[in-house]
This record gives sequence, C-alpha cells and structure tokens, in this order.
Amino acid sequence: MNLKILKKNLKNIFIKHGLNKSHAEISSSYIIKAELFGAQSHGLARMKMYCDRIKKKLINPNPKIKIKKISNSISHIDANNAIGFVAADVGIRQAIFNAKKTGIGLVGIKNSSHYGLSTFYAEKAVKENLTAWCYTNAPPAIAPHGSKKTLFGTNPICFGTPSGNKTPFILDTSMSIINRGKIRRAEKLGYKIPPGVALDKLGNPTTNAKKAILGSQLPIASFKGSGLAWMVDIISGVLTGANHGGKVRDPFDDLTGPQNVGHLFIVIKPNIFIGKNYLSQIKRNIKTVKRLPKSNRINKILYPGESKYAKYKKNLKKGINIPTNILKEIKKLNAI
Amino acid sequence: MNLKILKKNLKNIFIKHGLNKSHAEISSSYIIKAELFGAQSHGLARMKMYCDRIKKKLINPNPKIKIKKISNSISHIDANNAIGFVAADVGIRQAIFNAKKTGIGLVGIKNSSHYGLSTFYAEKAVKENLTAWCYTNAPPAIAPHGSKKTLFGTNPICFGTPSGNKTPFILDTSMSIINRGKIRRAEKLGYKIPPGVALDKLGNPTTNAKKAILGSQLPIASFKGSGLAWMVDIISGVLTGANHGGKVRDPFDDLTGPQNVGHLFIVIKPNIFIGKNYLSQIKRNIKTVKRLPKSNRINKILYPGESKYAKYKKNLKKGINIPTNILKEIKKLNAI
Repeated sequence: MNLKILKKNLKNIFIKHGLNKSHAEISSSYIIKAELFGAQSHGLARMKMYCDRIKKKLINPNPKIKIKKISNSISHIDANNAIGFVAADVGIRQAIFNAKKTGIGLVGIKNSSHYGLSTFYAEKAVKENLTAWCYTNAPPAIAPHGSKKTLFGTNPICFGTPSGNKTPFILDTSMSIINRGKIRRAEKLGYKIPPGVALDKLGNPTTNAKKAILGSQLPIASFKGSGLAWMVDIISGVLTGANHGGKVRDPFDDLTGPQNVGHLFIVIKPNIFIGKNYLSQIKRNIKTVKRLPKSNRINKILYPGESKYAKYKKNLKKGINIPTNILKEIKKLNAI
Repeated sequence: MNLKILKKNLKNIFIKHGLNKSHAEISSSYIIKAELFGAQSHGLARMKMYCDRIKKKLINPNPKIKIKKISNSISHIDANNAIGFVAADVGIRQAIFNAKKTGIGLVGIKNSSHYGLSTFYAEKAVKENLTAWCYTNAPPAIAPHGSKKTLFGTNPICFGTPSGNKTPFILDTSMSIINRGKIRRAEKLGYKIPPGVALDKLGNPTTNAKKAILGSQLPIASFKGSGLAWMVDIISGVLTGANHGGKVRDPFDDLTGPQNVGHLFIVIKPNIFIGKNYLSQIKRNIKTVKRLPKSNRINKILYPGESKYAKYKKNLKKGINIPTNILKEIKKLNAI
C-alpha cells in the first residue's frame, strides 16, 4: 500500500476515534515507522488496541502534559495518560534539550502508555549527535526468577549512539527471549511461536501463542535477564511515580483503567570527555569488530541497528505487506 | 584464617611489591570483600597478578590521579594507571559528590585497571541513599555475535539502589554466561567448567578451563548479550578515552603495557521525582515480587544482592576458606 495514503488513513482512524489532530499525526507516523523497521508487532497490529483505548478514554485524547523542571539537567513529566508515542516524544525532546544545555539530560515520565519501539526515541537523540538510554516498563509478561507467575514486562534496554557511519548504533533489546508483540501477532494470525521462549500457565513449555500469553515468557539468561527486567521496572516505574510491580495494565486485555506506564530517558553528549575524537574512536571500534574472522555461515558482522535500518530502507522502497487479517481490521476501524 | 591478620598480610604484600600504603590499604580491603561476597574469582586468586603488574609498574604504584571537572554533574578522571580499586574508589566518590549536589553525577575514568567487583562501588552509592550504574570494560573474553574471535570483555552491567530493606538491591551481571574469573580460578585449581559456557579456539564446546581461556566465552542470550557487551565497551572505553575494541590488555597474560581499562559511573538521587515516596514504593515493589507463587524447589524469591549479602554475613562469621594452591601463592608473595 502507498505509504502516504496509509498514513492518511491511520491518522483519520485516530481522529475518528477521538484523538486530537497533532497526536494522531505523531502516532500514525510512529506506527508506520514500526512497520518499516520490520517490527510488525509494534505497527498496524496495534491499531485496534490503541483505538479501543482512545474511545474509552483510557488513553486521554486531549491530555495536558505537564513538564516539571527539577534542574537544567533533570525534568519530570506527567503525561496525563497521553498516547505513549506523544508522551515519549515530548520526553525525549526534553532530554535532548537538557543534554545539549548541560551535557546530560535525565527525564522521568509517568502516566504514559505503550510507546511503540524504544528505537524511535533513541534515534531522535542520535540524530542530534547525542548518546541515549531509553527505558520503559510494560505489562506482566515475564515471571521473576524463582516464581511461576508473570510480573515484569518485557522491559527493553535501549541504547543509541552516533556510530560515525550513516546508520546509528541502536541496540534495542527486550529482556524476554522474544518480544511480546511477536506472540500477540502470532496469536492474531494463528501462527505457532518458537519452542523454548514461553511456558503455559501451569509452567509447561508451549509453542501455542494463546497459551503463552496466558502463561509466561522466559527471560533471557535466566536470573540475569530477570534481574535486568527488574532494574527496568524500578527505574521506569518506581523512580518516576508510574505503575510498577505488575501494576502496568495490559493494553489489550485490561480495559479497567489507564496503563500508567513509566519511561526513563538518559541522554548525554558523547564528546563530553574526549571531544571530537569520539567519532573517530567509535568508527575505529566498529571497524575492528567488523574485521574479525567470521563464524561459519555469517557473511557480515553487523552492529546493533544495521539490520533494522537495512529493512527500513528496503521496506521504504518496496512498501509494506499487510496481512489480510490486519487489513480487514484497519478497514473496519476506518468505517466507523 | 583470621580476617584482620589476612588483611594485614595482603597489605604488606602489596607494600613489599611497591604499592603505596594508602592504595595497599584500599586494595587489600576490596580483595577481602570479594572473598566475603563469595566471589573468590575476584579475591585472593588475583593477588599474584596484581603484584606482578605492580612490580613491573604496569600498575602505577604512585599514580597522580587527575580529576577534571566538566560541570557540577560531570567529571573526567585520568587514573594514571592506578590500581583499579583506587581509581574506581576515587571515581565513585566523585560521582556521589556530584549527584548529591545536582541530583545526577556522571564520571568517566580512563587509564585504570581491573577494579574487582562493580558491586563494591554501587554499594558505596547505595549507602549514601543513591542509585547507581557502574560499568567497566575488560580484556577480550566474548566473541561478538557473528565472529569466532573474542573481543568484548565480560563487561558487566551493575545497578544498585536503596531497597527500603537492610540489604541493598544490587544487580551485578556480566554479559558472559559465567564470569571469566571463575574460569581463571578453575584453571588454577584444575577444575572443569560447566558445559555450554565456552568454546575452544576452533569454536568447539569445551569444559576445559585452559582451552576456554584460549578460546571464547559465550555471551548471555546470543546477539542480545553480545550487543549489551558492545554497549558497555563503548560507554566505558570509547566515551572515556580508555582502551576499547579488544585493546584492553589481559592482566594475567599480557605484560607488555598498562591495561587502560575504562569505567563509567552514573549516580542519581532516587528521590528526584517522587521524593520520600521512593522508599515506600521500592519496598512495595520488592514485597509484591517476593509474594508471588514460587516455582518448584524454590523456597524464597530473592532480589539481586540478597544472596551475595547473605554469603557476606555468613563468611564474616565463619571466616574464609583458602584453597592450598592459593595459600601457597600468598605465602610465596609474602616471602619476597
């Protein structure tokens, strides 16, 4: 489908469901961006969820987002249940502003909702020649180490930095073996999920997407991934005043109130310590890794971000493939 | 062995090898602390390595550590090849000072060396009611995803925060499946290492510690762990002006020059956003996780730090067990 037309459609759908124009503009851009990155789990498959929540005002269609200045470096944002894309967009802009002024920007955001890919916001910082960490908590998906009940979200760690190359270095990695969106999408499309990534609610391994959603996802690296997911819950949720400890509502299944997701953004100038040398050094670093002897069946050693941006470029040319199921849903949303 | 006597012995050994008194005091304390935490890989087993490097002045026994103020929040430290314990100790104190003043402290350290456990420095911040991230790079141990040659260190991510309980929340997790010190110690004591954690230099799985050291360690979670180790190399090494991209020298095997390890410490006041509520909220968070239904064969759900501090207390009472091999080495070092 032509991307301009698709974008216009998505924007209209959002507006029809009550979202204000500027938020509809921002949100539809990010949804298309997710598709271009090949992260279909964070794209069109979520339109119905967002619209359902907007209609029920669980996402505030006209929020008053308050930015509280703590210092020139630190800001606290109450997003007033704005759609996550907008809350995070405001947040990363503030963190960038603070970092440019003082060398470091720290922004905590509460009363937000699902914000799509952390990559979006890290990219914004990298485009301004800054280095960034973007953290967000999420609804229960992973059982803490030692427990059989889910509590932590897939809680990604995202880190972006200028690479000295056209493609930014952006690592965006959930603390579950695969991301929840992939399981959601598999459920929607009737696909199986890979073995070894999830358990059913009795604690037995499963490849059934529906059972996995009712059960728990496995964290990466056992207690290590569980600990990292816990860290992300603390810094995104506890620190910022957002929900935490399993209280972030599932955006698909729980329509009893706003999600109150929390985000934490840390942005720094990468040249604070070594000045202009940063770019030549990071370039050297990446070159050294890329020149290592390769494992069997590997053509090229890639840095985090490269494969995502390659997909982006390719999809921008060849367009987005929309599964029939999801196309139907979009048409239905547009028909109200 | 009586801990006071042991400490005195270690201090003397350091001084005999040329280290100045105050650095010998700090270093011997941290080495005993590693043993108390049950991290023997970072304790007495490293004494000979430190002494060898001090004797050859690869660790500067009388460094001039320079602290450059970038802003009230940001400092850059040139540790002048000090022993890592001291460089990191100076660094975390500066980061704590900056955080207390402005809410956030960022300190980059170059020309340092192996600093023991990241937990030591995170603990210092937590004891001052602060939240901290401590990062360090390390000599090649992990092959980047797609390569068969080691380049990244085990590059830990360490995060500490007040828990509202006596025991701090300190997550300290290397990006390799097990830490390199454990393999070093297994090599020294003639033990096997567990299967699935390392490859020999031809890329085949091995449980032989010596072969693993000549080969490569496996990162946690495949490309995810590899990406996180890369992030740690960038922020600890590239950003600070330290060695990076596989250039950090192995402290045991490479006596051709100083290591030039880099560290990055980020310290924040956990009450910047929600004030006093932070403590009640983190307490609630931990309580919620601990009350979850437990997996089979699990008695208690623990938060990161709990098992380490339990060992610490136990070892403080019952004393440290020193393997004959290592005791011999210590005696030899003391006899020069």
